[in-house]
Amino acid sequence: MKQKRIYFDNAATTPLDNRVLEAMMPFLHEDFGNASSIHSEGTRAKEALEEARKTVSGCLGAHPEEIYFTSSGTEANNLALKGISFANRSRGNHIIVSAIEHDCILNSCRWLENHGFSVTYLPVMKNGIINPEDLKELITSKTILVSVMHANNEIGTIQPLEEIGKITKEKGICFHSDACQSFGKIPLDVNEMNLDLLTINSHKIYGPKGVGALYIRKGTRIEPLLHGGGQEQGLRSSTENIAGIVGFAAASKLCMHELPGEGYRLAAMREKLVTTLQEEVEEIYFNGDPFLRLPGIINFCISGLEGESIRLLLMLDETGVSVSTGSACSNNSGDSSSHVLHAIGLNPFESRGSIRISLGRFNTEEEISSFLEIFLTKIKKLNPIFS
Amino acid sequence: MKQKRIYFDNAATTPLDNRVLEAMMPFLHEDFGNASSIHSEGTRAKEALEEARKTVSGCLGAHPEEIYFTSSGTEANNLALKGISFANRSRGNHIIVSAIEHDCILNSCRWLENHGFSVTYLPVMKNGIINPEDLKELITSKTILVSVMHANNEIGTIQPLEEIGKITKEKGICFHSDACQSFGKIPLDVNEMNLDLLTINSHKIYGPKGVGALYIRKGTRIEPLLHGGGQEQGLRSSTENIAGIVGFAAASKLCMHELPGEGYRLAAMREKLVTTLQEEVEEIYFNGDPFLRLPGIINFCISGLEGESIRLLLMLDETGVSVSTGSACSNNSGDSSSHVLHAIGLNPFESRGSIRISLGRFNTEEEISSFLEIFLTKIKKLNPIFS
Repeated sequence: MKQKRIYFDNAATTPLDNRVLEAMMPFLHEDFGNASSIHSEGTRAKEALEEARKTVSGCLGAHPEEIYFTSSGTEANNLALKGISFANRSRGNHIIVSAIEHDCILNSCRWLENHGFSVTYLPVMKNGIINPEDLKELITSKTILVSVMHANNEIGTIQPLEEIGKITKEKGICFHSDACQSFGKIPLDVNEMNLDLLTINSHKIYGPKGVGALYIRKGTRIEPLLHGGGQEQGLRSSTENIAGIVGFAAASKLCMHELPGEGYRLAAMREKLVTTLQEEVEEIYFNGDPFLRLPGIINFCISGLEGESIRLLLMLDETGVSVSTGSACSNNSGDSSSHVLHAIGLNPFESRGSIRISLGRFNTEEEISSFLEIFLTKIKKLNPIFS
Repeated sequence: MKQKRIYFDNAATTPLDNRVLEAMMPFLHEDFGNASSIHSEGTRAKEALEEARKTVSGCLGAHPEEIYFTSSGTEANNLALKGISFANRSRGNHIIVSAIEHDCILNSCRWLENHGFSVTYLPVMKNGIINPEDLKELITSKTILVSVMHANNEIGTIQPLEEIGKITKEKGICFHSDACQSFGKIPLDVNEMNLDLLTINSHKIYGPKGVGALYIRKGTRIEPLLHGGGQEQGLRSSTENIAGIVGFAAASKLCMHELPGEGYRLAAMREKLVTTLQEEVEEIYFNGDPFLRLPGIINFCISGLEGESIRLLLMLDETGVSVSTGSACSNNSGDSSSHVLHAIGLNPFESRGSIRISLGRFNTEEEISSFLEIFLTKIKKLNPIFS
């Protein structure tokens, strides 16, 4: 029998929950219609689409018509950044984003800089959190958009969205947040946080890959990224991926239902990991804020193992354990250093020694114990100082 | 027992083939990895992705590294049009497309017109086909891109891509074709046709929704539409939808395997439909070219039933038959008139009376007989002149 692997890379992607797959199956079988068709097959697809929209909006405190399905978090972030910028060009050309955003935000910004926009990359403090006072000072009369992620994908740090939302609301500036890592894991409410746009996605919450959504507050001026048949209220053309969208909605609902119990469970497992590692490995230090963080993400470096994270990762992989050296989404070969760790003050040498463990729904306490045993053996093998 | 419906709207979307679903299932279960991760889950996903790329490229006579997966035909068309235009802006700003392109091409063009580009909409002849000589005359020193669809989604007409490709190659202009309707149904070879870019998608060939691809000839200058983690050789960022992509590849392979037998089968069914309708309905006329057309698409108008197509469609739907009044992709309410039928010379009144029947893999000869019986009864009910 194949031994079950220990998958500790849930921030990269998560297994599809069987309950989600079950919800999707009718739409991979008999209910295959195109939601734009007016016959029965089409109307059944349309109904499923609108039901999914209702479910997802309910998870955010939004109205269904404020949810626009996309093919991914990346697409939703591109739509938010470029769509808002182009639609509000007459009001100004200045954008503020945090320095530790996901590459899809940062690279959209770089593209916008080549198209007449000016971008300020707001630094973060040593704990990975922005200072809202800094933000306030950077806003100019030309600022049209502030985009700060909810929780960071590498170090798990949570940003003070409520405070940022108060500032942007007062100044009348659009506020977007990328919540791909936090959605379904910690509470999120577009009204409490004064969000105008919010990106969420499916494959980080035990839903299918290839689906995301952008929340857009009613009345927000934005232009489409994908032009075509006019689906999603004209803002995101493409035949809708009904099975995927239904799966996303089912996954969202499950997460909401299991919150906060699941958060406590993950946090307890994280605590065990952190405490044991701190006891056993003298030279370990954890990146990000110890409190303002997602329950499931741990990021650390070990002095004496700098530059060894890839080797360690592959050694762990051989024994059936999957962890990460950083964001999988960056499609890096593994040896490029992280802009997030750089922003919190690590040098490239240190950051190439970082390991990210991200726990999820299907991880168990037994796996934590097994992992610790394997991990401590491996690092001793890599560097005898840990023996 | 629920009676099986007669689904004659395969140009809008197709049912997922069970063999395709079977190929997808591992990736909706245990093989859930992120293709950018370097551990075993990631490498398995990456291998499946590259295997799919090989399969799809093989169907087009292309190299695997020339295939870029997207979330849809719409996205691939947007990427082709905008990506080529922006990347080649220094060479010129003129684009030529046919007047009967899909809305995602036409609306991308309209957007480009607002961003400094000039677009010529090449008229078609009465049979729905462009005249390559017309194209030749419209090319200027500023022309950077010609985009002409392979087969039309409403009337099924096939364009002379080989002839167009000779012209664009000679002039050194990028040639793109949207083959969403033709791929898997009629032969297609990027080299024989001198294509530089080609759009294909999955849900029209019994594959999953939410997947498409753009073929881009090596050396073509193009810029991304979605910026981010650098997936798809930096041209289409987003965590790859592995299950969807694997399904798309499986669907492509099946289509290629079943060509040309399936083409003959569909054409024979179409012949029966056309012949019987011509015999039974005096005032019927068929749109598009009688020969240069896809085997499965029929588009017709009936004098005396102008403006009644929606009513007829709904009457047919009630009896378990699904047909269309035009392109489902246009997300129209059904009463807007078709730009394709307008381009071949129909007036809005006539075009609102058009019906599209599109046959597919799961249709049978028995269904053709049943359909004819139902259809002839219904039109007699709508207008007694047919009695």
